[in-house]
Amino acid sequence: MTDAATRRSTLVIMVGYRGEGFSGMAEQPGRRTVLGELRRALEVVLRREVELDAAGRTDAGVHALGQYVSLPLRGPECQLSGRRMHASLVALTPDDLSVRALYRAEAGFSARFDATSRHYRYRIACGAARPVMAWDHAWWLRSQPRLDVAAMDRAARCLVGEHDFASFCKASSAQLIRHDGRSTCRNVQRVRVSQDNEAGEPLVTVEVDGNAFLHNMVRIVVGSLVEVGSGRRDVSWVRAALDACDRRAAGPTAPARGLCLEGVDYPAGALLPWD
Amino acid sequence: MTDAATRRSTLVIMVGYRGEGFSGMAEQPGRRTVLGELRRALEVVLRREVELDAAGRTDAGVHALGQYVSLPLRGPECQLSGRRMHASLVALTPDDLSVRALYRAEAGFSARFDATSRHYRYRIACGAARPVMAWDHAWWLRSQPRLDVAAMDRAARCLVGEHDFASFCKASSAQLIRHDGRSTCRNVQRVRVSQDNEAGEPLVTVEVDGNAFLHNMVRIVVGSLVEVGSGRRDVSWVRAALDACDRRAAGPTAPARGLCLEGVDYPAGALLPWD
Repeated sequence: MTDAATRRSTLVIMVGYRGEGFSGMAEQPGRRTVLGELRRALEVVLRREVELDAAGRTDAGVHALGQYVSLPLRGPECQLSGRRMHASLVALTPDDLSVRALYRAEAGFSARFDATSRHYRYRIACGAARPVMAWDHAWWLRSQPRLDVAAMDRAARCLVGEHDFASFCKASSAQLIRHDGRSTCRNVQRVRVSQDNEAGEPLVTVEVDGNAFLHNMVRIVVGSLVEVGSGRRDVSWVRAALDACDRRAAGPTAPARGLCLEGVDYPAGALLPWD
Repeated sequence: MTDAATRRSTLVIMVGYRGEGFSGMAEQPGRRTVLGELRRALEVVLRREVELDAAGRTDAGVHALGQYVSLPLRGPECQLSGRRMHASLVALTPDDLSVRALYRAEAGFSARFDATSRHYRYRIACGAARPVMAWDHAWWLRSQPRLDVAAMDRAARCLVGEHDFASFCKASSAQLIRHDGRSTCRNVQRVRVSQDNEAGEPLVTVEVDGNAFLHNMVRIVVGSLVEVGSGRRDVSWVRAALDACDRRAAGPTAPARGLCLEGVDYPAGALLPWD
């Protein structure tokens, strides 16, 4: 092992999961959560108690392909074989949770605080026919034969940049954030609405990238864009909703099942594959 | 309604389903099957007993996006609103079955006998990490870090054309076919093996198109191609297996969960959308 590798004493795990069976990412007493399952598996592998840090606190029902979790390691643990640890973690985790890859990072690295960008994707199936393969990871708008994707994409442009997204935050969370003197400003790097064909099925896809997100933010953005795509609101309404800084000005919260945390960015070179 | 439409007195339904909850397509007493669920729904809508004909007899666990089912209609039934009938069928069918579209065809049309081509897709996930979104519709080869896709594609070429596929047919079915004096020859129109990225996950995809298929044929083709892709057999072995006309010469039967009936072709103009 190189010197550089031995100095890297944080274990970073890329995980995916299907959200329907979990009460979200964060641990809650008596509930089945992603971090709970992962912690249990890691405690068996490392034979000690562990505390995990995650890039995104996804809600109950939200899926992930590229969620990241980090854990500081102790001296001899850095010598473990990544391949063997990976095999053990796969064997110790349930079918709806996937340990996708293991990385090493410097001591002090945090999957949460070192993340520079989070990528979310939301899938929508339109029309009378029930989605098949996308059933458990798309929002089925059965009474909506189609959405005006171009209008949704235009409406979304005003969201890009640094803004106060209080209108797109769960009201109780926004209140708590204000009470703590923290900010509801976030930087949205990109929003893209497109018509896709995934595994043979037509889907409308909303991709949102940002430095960080407020509680329910992507789902309220999607719920608002669907108001535009369905013709119930016009394109300029989304900007008015943003400017209002009031949850009541935006659209409904789209269901969790359509949302997926696709990936997280970290500074170049921060993560080394752990073989 | 046009004269042409009224002469079209066969209802054709395009259906999709996730296979894990069904004991296959064909009805079996006491089992949950796709045709059983569909028949029950149609009998409520049409208020009479119906008998259905299907393009492909998919096995237990096999999925479909473009399966076709046909049903001769009686006089006044031809006047029904397709849109309303579609909504009723969607409401009367379970979550893992999708009534995707309704068509009209001429009297005497059969979803089974008028089909000119069937398109199947098989998905394989390689490597230690459990597939996430593809979990229920891919074969997970966990101890196989990668497959030689180019070798698999080359090995598959000898299958294209009219051949006796007895080696790629469930042994008991081949015996029955021979006993009945029928043929195990089929015409494979295309086989393509490729490395795909679907919904964010890397998958090896095997697409097979043919006029018709023997029992387990696509799954044995895939099982054999994986022998080549994993390096256990060389490219020429698939042709030797084909020539042997003996099930024991081919590879194992790949699991049902990776297989999907993607679509079926009918002569141009045979199906008219039913609005």
